[in-house]
Amino acid sequence: MPRYRMTVEYDGTPYVGWQKQDNGHSVQSAIENAILALTGEAVLVRGAGRTDSGVHAMGQVVHADLSKTWPPHTLRNALNAYLGKARERVSIIDAAEVDERFDARFSAHRRHYLYRIISRKAPLALEAKRAWWVSKDLDHVPMHAAAQTLIGYHDFTTFRSIHCQANSPLRTLDRLDVTRNGDLIEIRATAQSFLHNQIRSFAGTLKMVGEGKWSVEDVRAALEARDRKACGPVAPPEGLYFVQVDYPADPDARRIRQSEQPRPARE
Amino acid sequence: MPRYRMTVEYDGTPYVGWQKQDNGHSVQSAIENAILALTGEAVLVRGAGRTDSGVHAMGQVVHADLSKTWPPHTLRNALNAYLGKARERVSIIDAAEVDERFDARFSAHRRHYLYRIISRKAPLALEAKRAWWVSKDLDHVPMHAAAQTLIGYHDFTTFRSIHCQANSPLRTLDRLDVTRNGDLIEIRATAQSFLHNQIRSFAGTLKMVGEGKWSVEDVRAALEARDRKACGPVAPPEGLYFVQVDYPADPDARRIRQSEQPRPARE
Repeated sequence: MPRYRMTVEYDGTPYVGWQKQDNGHSVQSAIENAILALTGEAVLVRGAGRTDSGVHAMGQVVHADLSKTWPPHTLRNALNAYLGKARERVSIIDAAEVDERFDARFSAHRRHYLYRIISRKAPLALEAKRAWWVSKDLDHVPMHAAAQTLIGYHDFTTFRSIHCQANSPLRTLDRLDVTRNGDLIEIRATAQSFLHNQIRSFAGTLKMVGEGKWSVEDVRAALEARDRKACGPVAPPEGLYFVQVDYPADPDARRIRQSEQPRPARE
Repeated sequence: MPRYRMTVEYDGTPYVGWQKQDNGHSVQSAIENAILALTGEAVLVRGAGRTDSGVHAMGQVVHADLSKTWPPHTLRNALNAYLGKARERVSIIDAAEVDERFDARFSAHRRHYLYRIISRKAPLALEAKRAWWVSKDLDHVPMHAAAQTLIGYHDFTTFRSIHCQANSPLRTLDRLDVTRNGDLIEIRATAQSFLHNQIRSFAGTLKMVGEGKWSVEDVRAALEARDRKACGPVAPPEGLYFVQVDYPADPDARRIRQSEQPRPARE
């Protein structure tokens, strides 16, 4: 059975999240329904990351096994036609046939997220549900400085949801940059994998620093506390975007990495 | 009666347009309703430009006369609270008390619009209703070259709606730049005033150039035809943004300009 890898963009607002759940419609179901409509096959679509309700994606990566071989652009266009007909807010950006050893989740060796904050007095009209509106002035310079204390290999217990299912709170954070362009503050995070609510916990904590309520030292102390109660407020989902997933070029290299890192976890 | 000038952002998607109409809810009504809820006064809110249904604004400018004096930030915050309660997609960005000679429409001496095209194979999920999706590849270089033939003082009959109410099709176009950033093509237009559908007519015509169906010479010929039938297809409203309005610093200067230019018209 040929395996297809697809890059997916979605507006997370109307969904219960990436993953199928009993309490509403998911992005995963939207894509599985489109494949069913196209091929008549009920397949499982696996994603690189399990985004929560309201979280968006520019570059979620998924894979699915189909019984028939499709020209990739035909598959993309046909699935988009079915997604459009069902009025889903999901778009297949590209599709490719891949080696059967490729796994969207387990082969991923780097995940990139973006958290967008708009800091201004007026509520958001054009960017409603596309960014976190913060009416207070934020200074991004100490936010960036505080973010740098989180880089590296740490026990991130403070910054993960109590519902996080990962076995270990140990993760290596490769990048956490805070930049500003006018009233838009962008937080860019990169790691092989993230814990549940990790980036939203970072964003809510860094916002406290931007307001001047927390110091850089407070953030370091929160990390070292390894205690969920030491975290700042968790930022809302609408500011978070799953931007990109990196995979190694050689499928064999993926399997080796997978066996070393058996449980990539969720944001 | 004190006069207030306000800068307004809106998502034009759910509205019949800026102006009050019989067939649905307008941005103007949304703001007038908020003022009524706050002050008990039924006032007329006048805007710098009459945007069509689906057209957005980052910086529409309006004025209204209120019987009571308000600290401007209180007025802004209170109106935003009422707009939020009514679930309007309208936000008052700033407010200021102004000289009574200030008129949002007639004092304006320069209007800036943006038209956004996303050129890619996949439909838009995150940018749905925020840009024109064009599935064909567009070359922005000849689009920009063609745009330059439209700059200056011309009879723009070709590029105005047959419903345009302006007395004259003569306008001076100050700027029409086409730039590209990845799959986003931005058309930036500046003039003292525009004719109805002028920028959407430009955008639809320039898209034909980007596809290679029209040459720069074809656009020049269309302008010179002074015939609505010579226009390319009119681009859809969702790509258009009313970005900014410029006013002279001295209120007296405004009145002089107004008497010289009695009929600023619409897009």
